[in-house]
Amino acid sequence: MMEEEKELTLEELQDVIANKNIARLVEIFNEYEEIDIAEVASKLEKIEDLIFIFRVVKSEYTAELFANLPNDIQEDLVTAMSNSDVIKLVEASYSDDMADFLEEMPANLVAKVLANASAETRNDINILLNYKDHTAGSIMTTEFISLNSNLTVEEAMAIIREKGRDAETVYTIFCRDNKRNFEGTVDLDDLIFANPGTKLKEILNTDYVSVNVNDDQEEVAQMFKRYDLNAMAVLNNDQKLVGLITIDDVVDVIDEEVNEDISIQSGVVPLKDSYLGTGVFKIALKYIPWIIVLLVLGTFSSMVLSRFEEAFQAVPVLAAFIPVLMDTGGNAGSQTSTVVVRAIALDEINKGDGKKAIWKEFISSIIVGTIISIFSFCWFLFEMGTGIVKISSGANMYEVSGLVSLTLWFTIVLAKLIGCCLPLFAKKLHKDPALMASPFVTTFVDVCSLLIYFFICMFVFRMI
Amino acid sequence: MMEEEKELTLEELQDVIANKNIARLVEIFNEYEEIDIAEVASKLEKIEDLIFIFRVVKSEYTAELFANLPNDIQEDLVTAMSNSDVIKLVEASYSDDMADFLEEMPANLVAKVLANASAETRNDINILLNYKDHTAGSIMTTEFISLNSNLTVEEAMAIIREKGRDAETVYTIFCRDNKRNFEGTVDLDDLIFANPGTKLKEILNTDYVSVNVNDDQEEVAQMFKRYDLNAMAVLNNDQKLVGLITIDDVVDVIDEEVNEDISIQSGVVPLKDSYLGTGVFKIALKYIPWIIVLLVLGTFSSMVLSRFEEAFQAVPVLAAFIPVLMDTGGNAGSQTSTVVVRAIALDEINKGDGKKAIWKEFISSIIVGTIISIFSFCWFLFEMGTGIVKISSGANMYEVSGLVSLTLWFTIVLAKLIGCCLPLFAKKLHKDPALMASPFVTTFVDVCSLLIYFFICMFVFRMI
Repeated sequence: MMEEEKELTLEELQDVIANKNIARLVEIFNEYEEIDIAEVASKLEKIEDLIFIFRVVKSEYTAELFANLPNDIQEDLVTAMSNSDVIKLVEASYSDDMADFLEEMPANLVAKVLANASAETRNDINILLNYKDHTAGSIMTTEFISLNSNLTVEEAMAIIREKGRDAETVYTIFCRDNKRNFEGTVDLDDLIFANPGTKLKEILNTDYVSVNVNDDQEEVAQMFKRYDLNAMAVLNNDQKLVGLITIDDVVDVIDEEVNEDISIQSGVVPLKDSYLGTGVFKIALKYIPWIIVLLVLGTFSSMVLSRFEEAFQAVPVLAAFIPVLMDTGGNAGSQTSTVVVRAIALDEINKGDGKKAIWKEFISSIIVGTIISIFSFCWFLFEMGTGIVKISSGANMYEVSGLVSLTLWFTIVLAKLIGCCLPLFAKKLHKDPALMASPFVTTFVDVCSLLIYFFICMFVFRMI
Repeated sequence: MMEEEKELTLEELQDVIANKNIARLVEIFNEYEEIDIAEVASKLEKIEDLIFIFRVVKSEYTAELFANLPNDIQEDLVTAMSNSDVIKLVEASYSDDMADFLEEMPANLVAKVLANASAETRNDINILLNYKDHTAGSIMTTEFISLNSNLTVEEAMAIIREKGRDAETVYTIFCRDNKRNFEGTVDLDDLIFANPGTKLKEILNTDYVSVNVNDDQEEVAQMFKRYDLNAMAVLNNDQKLVGLITIDDVVDVIDEEVNEDISIQSGVVPLKDSYLGTGVFKIALKYIPWIIVLLVLGTFSSMVLSRFEEAFQAVPVLAAFIPVLMDTGGNAGSQTSTVVVRAIALDEINKGDGKKAIWKEFISSIIVGTIISIFSFCWFLFEMGTGIVKISSGANMYEVSGLVSLTLWFTIVLAKLIGCCLPLFAKKLHKDPALMASPFVTTFVDVCSLLIYFFICMFVFRMI
């Protein structure tokens, strides 16, 4: 959203490249954000055109352009690049961006990049590639500034001016003692506000927040949210500083985790690439597994229902309320599991609070169940009284309404207890509680509500 | 996660206050993050104890402590505070934090706070209170640094040192021309790397990104993610600079929006306060509306089913497959709506791409439908052949399997088309597409699949 709302077009970019108008190309990089240029550049037909851009534009710009290109174009580009172009690109890129890129690439390309990297860069990239996915180590950068806390503010500023351009951020400076133990952080603004002669150790934040390099990235995101951080120190098991995580990487993590959670809850394997860029067959394959799981799980419902053939033959209107029972049960359960999963994610439910949550859901389910049962009793009478729902001659409207409403009461209480206990149980097993808000819960509740339905039918109303 | 993993306890805090141990209290604020202190302090029984903390600790600490307290305690505290304490608190707080707090408070408390604020602060708070919820204006701060671009780096640094402590961030400096028109941004690190004599206009980023003060906060969050920003300028309709949004506020927005979306999809009115802090009646009230909506919508399914009484009397096993049909249809629809809602959120589906998406889902639904139908035909035969699902003497196993599988094919194709079209339609009407991944879709698909079931039953298999 520039003031003039001007947009870079593919035609302009092609023109500039065809005419080798380097001056205008440099201007484009000053005028537009790299991600906007990447979007247009990824539509260039000839890979040579892209290589031209990488050769003539300053590498600090092209490194960011590269990080914003889609994976398949990154691959084609690096494959087609000369070794000297690769060197330029690798050295100008942040090592965490490079590691992210290499994770998705075939081995021969990884070898080409690493062979062209300087020893230091290669080391940085290798370290990052070795951390397991979804850990703090996998999202951190190794390009941070760490200073001895005995330095003065003036000395520190001099080092930052000299080395800061290579670091991912200079807004948070890490301080260490003579033995290289991490002591705390200094924010850049504190350096600016401080007296030049002050020693770093005097203005150090010692109430810093840090994570272990093997901690889960979701935990890291929670801490950024809780403490409103811009950057966080990553320590190894010996409490030595090994990396830095900045908030822009965390925003991506939050996004990724949310997408995963929502996808799981809707029963679809998360897409890795862009939607429009993914082929129909690939999309279909993401849909099929869960549908099959549901089909197979549905066997239980069919099993229960087929045992009650006589009920349907005697009182066919019983079948008419199956969808309402199932939808209400499923919804009541997923309401509770959503609320509980969120409370767990926000760290509101800690050790010992599990019982409080179960008690809370139990009481509220009784309130909800009672109100809904009374409402539904009247509503079902209305449905059948007005003829919206046709009732066969043999059946009694009041008995059917009573039966379904009573079943609803039990279903709601049960569904809410299941919806509350399953995420708590998952947390106890150190699994992701969001998994439990999945179709499994619904199927479980479905079968239970059908069984309750027919038991009440048989024993309370003696209808069968 | 301090190195020592030490935690502040309620006992220690009570002790320190009871003994009026001011030195230790100040130490606590150096040792722990304000949010951790707030969690413990909110459990203090006497409001006088809290007031004691606010009276003796430096206001830059207590302002942050205040922002982290729960709403009800903030209210009690300000009600009990003397006017001079309120003045201290208000002036030390960021005006956006104060505005957030006042939005939730009764009118008499708002009056008390505004009466004790300086003219400038009152003005800032009033401006923020006047922006509609969920707009850029409602999450921005008015405490930013804006400098004339004719200043030199040295002059700029002097002003930042002098005024920077009152600003929410000094990491992004806004530059304006002599007519106060916004020209661009300068990052603090660029100032540090630059020559002291350089003029700001020479190092200005003119490819800055900005939002209008009335833009939706979700749009703001998207831009932060897209451009990896730390701070963004907020302009009014005359393109004049009115505020600043920092990334930590955006992280909260992302969290809030995600919570809202997930809550809506699970049919629960989002909780505003903490889960364990909300009463059971209040929680029950959040659950009830959607369950009633579903019950009423369920009328359509009951209506359809009750018209097919004779079918259940003739072939009772038909009822046994209703849950499978409904679950599969609901799941197939919500898979697609989840994927499409996300693609819309990531800006992948723009004008004209809607048709591409519909086509894609149509083709993939045919693939999914065909594979699932073949699988389910075999699976249903297995269910009935082995007797897991009991089949009445009159019915033909192959006919029933064929009927249900064929219905599944139509249901999946229809569900995926609905799941794709509804979010696109919502986007066209400028409504939140996530709304369309709600129980409405499921109910719509349910009714359609039941109708298809019985039509195939009647016309293809002539079973009724």
